[in-house]
Amino acid sequence: MSLTSPALAGKLAGLQSSAIRDLLKLTARPEIISLAGGLPDAALMPGERIAAAAEAALRDPAVLQYTESPGWPALRAVIAERASAKIGRSVPVGEVFITHGSQQALSLLAEVLLDPGALVVVEDPAYVGALQVFRAAGARIVAVPLDADGLRVDVLEELLAAGERPAVVHTVANFHNPGGVTLAPERRRRLAELAEAHGFWVIEDDPYGELWFDQPAPAPVASYSPQVIRLSSVSKILAPALRVGWLIAPEKVCRAVELLKQGADLCGSALTHQITTDLLTDTDWLTAHVDTIRAAYGTRARALVAALRTTFADRVHCTDPTGGMFIWADFTDGTNASTLLPTALEAGVAYVPGAAFAVTDAYQTSMRLCFTTSDEPTLTEAVHRLARAATTSA
Amino acid sequence: MSLTSPALAGKLAGLQSSAIRDLLKLTARPEIISLAGGLPDAALMPGERIAAAAEAALRDPAVLQYTESPGWPALRAVIAERASAKIGRSVPVGEVFITHGSQQALSLLAEVLLDPGALVVVEDPAYVGALQVFRAAGARIVAVPLDADGLRVDVLEELLAAGERPAVVHTVANFHNPGGVTLAPERRRRLAELAEAHGFWVIEDDPYGELWFDQPAPAPVASYSPQVIRLSSVSKILAPALRVGWLIAPEKVCRAVELLKQGADLCGSALTHQITTDLLTDTDWLTAHVDTIRAAYGTRARALVAALRTTFADRVHCTDPTGGMFIWADFTDGTNASTLLPTALEAGVAYVPGAAFAVTDAYQTSMRLCFTTSDEPTLTEAVHRLARAATTSA
Repeated sequence: MSLTSPALAGKLAGLQSSAIRDLLKLTARPEIISLAGGLPDAALMPGERIAAAAEAALRDPAVLQYTESPGWPALRAVIAERASAKIGRSVPVGEVFITHGSQQALSLLAEVLLDPGALVVVEDPAYVGALQVFRAAGARIVAVPLDADGLRVDVLEELLAAGERPAVVHTVANFHNPGGVTLAPERRRRLAELAEAHGFWVIEDDPYGELWFDQPAPAPVASYSPQVIRLSSVSKILAPALRVGWLIAPEKVCRAVELLKQGADLCGSALTHQITTDLLTDTDWLTAHVDTIRAAYGTRARALVAALRTTFADRVHCTDPTGGMFIWADFTDGTNASTLLPTALEAGVAYVPGAAFAVTDAYQTSMRLCFTTSDEPTLTEAVHRLARAATTSA
Repeated sequence: MSLTSPALAGKLAGLQSSAIRDLLKLTARPEIISLAGGLPDAALMPGERIAAAAEAALRDPAVLQYTESPGWPALRAVIAERASAKIGRSVPVGEVFITHGSQQALSLLAEVLLDPGALVVVEDPAYVGALQVFRAAGARIVAVPLDADGLRVDVLEELLAAGERPAVVHTVANFHNPGGVTLAPERRRRLAELAEAHGFWVIEDDPYGELWFDQPAPAPVASYSPQVIRLSSVSKILAPALRVGWLIAPEKVCRAVELLKQGADLCGSALTHQITTDLLTDTDWLTAHVDTIRAAYGTRARALVAALRTTFADRVHCTDPTGGMFIWADFTDGTNASTLLPTALEAGVAYVPGAAFAVTDAYQTSMRLCFTTSDEPTLTEAVHRLARAATTSA
């Protein structure tokens, strides 16, 4: 039995079961209001519409069979059409590859694009699922901080000027997890220019782009260059259980991903692919459905931020509620969010300490607050509990 | 753009889009009777029963949410129960890990169990999907031939006596793909003993075990030792589109697989997991359903073998129709099945030449014939066309 092999130990060191998951287990107690999750609201998922789509899909036995590794052709076609509208150029079906959620897109791309030791630039604070993948691929990871306008592209430029040569720059440009911020349009353009000038790939990881509250997210980074690989999924607008994500990339990248997908798991589910096709092509229904989610999340996000600002005033700084699923909040008085957590749990509220997302900086005074699964009075009560905890521990 | 990196080239060299897949594209023409596929019959898949299960499942919004990486708990419980009955000991849920088809079980296990350069023993002819995975993992592959009683365990013993130390021995013990044979009970016991004596893992890959025609397959290799990791799926008895496979392994293996699964694709689909749970626990229905598949495949297999034996007599030797999806046939007169293929396609019949499955031997005179998706008159006609092709080319 060789589970102690050096190679496996190396892989698993980069794949520690994340602090978030362990925390989620602690916060499942019903008396705790959890802002620690990172899940969309199941109550807003279209169960009846999916049941109808399943019934319709199952009239064709082909949806029960193995399908092609790049995905069910009808789904690739509708994703190509939507991507064309989003990116502003005609995206051929050959540039669309359906994956088992966008996490699989990330992990297959890491295998395709990265040699061990290759440099990957990530955002700090970072999406933990991306860090896991890049660490498992043996990449060297350099973090570039976020500010209110997203990735500090000027800091990336300094790295490039200093001779760093990334293979990949990973960005959650819209409504960042955990940072809550959105990359400014001018920075998107500049990031794409740098990718072309220096020959690196940008992975534009966009699970939250549709979840804008007042105005749509800016044009994607991919609209500025074919050197940008876009990732997204239906997990946040339809349902995670469809396990439908995708990447939009040059055909040579898609072909390499296809060979790896065959070995990894052969193919996706034609059934959930066809259900997704049905829902995405029912455009009037889809627009109304996504509007409902936007309205609900927007109301919740604004309630959370209003409660934070009313309750803590200058003592907490938090991001504006513009979209996505998270608010990032900082104690300006130096309160340590990690050490506060046990007191907060006693007071009946949970969050994820910023340190869980830190690559270089520790983010000791920060918290990620998820507003998707609580109504407004509950979010307000959560903030009151947080205030009691912060007062107790002060 | 670094798609020409040595590391990727190495991976892809082991992952050539298989000869089978390329051939399938050629044989999709309607005038050709294809025995080249490897697909279960979609017409026998329980579409209506799955639609009913989907509707029932979707009454609980939890089936639309992300689920745990090792799988939907209810599905793990029913798989544990079925595995306990099959293996003959109480299998705890912690030893059950649900994967995206059994191909994902293989690929995650290869990452967990194999360091680059580790020795893997495979069967010859081999299941191509396993070869892909082991090659991609950088394993050294040694092939042990099959005979009418399955893996030549005596040849494995010779390798061990000569000092070879495999990390893994992979076997499709029941109704082999492509070889059609089943590992004899005494060999199963001996293989498990060798695993314990020499400290290697056996991966008992069992997609076809339920598809027996006259009598059930022998007790699994896993019934003889916990050093045997069992893989199976519902793809051949329910539907591939559920994408439900699993592995049964010691908990420490399952925990390592879980960390890799999180990075690979987070989790499976709670929806298809719950549908599968529903169908597997509806035991009266399931028994009748699987009996129907067995009866249909058995009738088809016997018709194919009868036609081969009637038509070719001594000129072709083929396996007995005992279960699974394939008959392995050899031209005893030296006819080369690879060079015959174009003539066979002209005559309107397709098969996969044995060479596509060869690890060491070339199997130049062999063919894999899949009987699952053709009725008896069609199979008989296919054999007549094959005879015409063989006569023409002789």
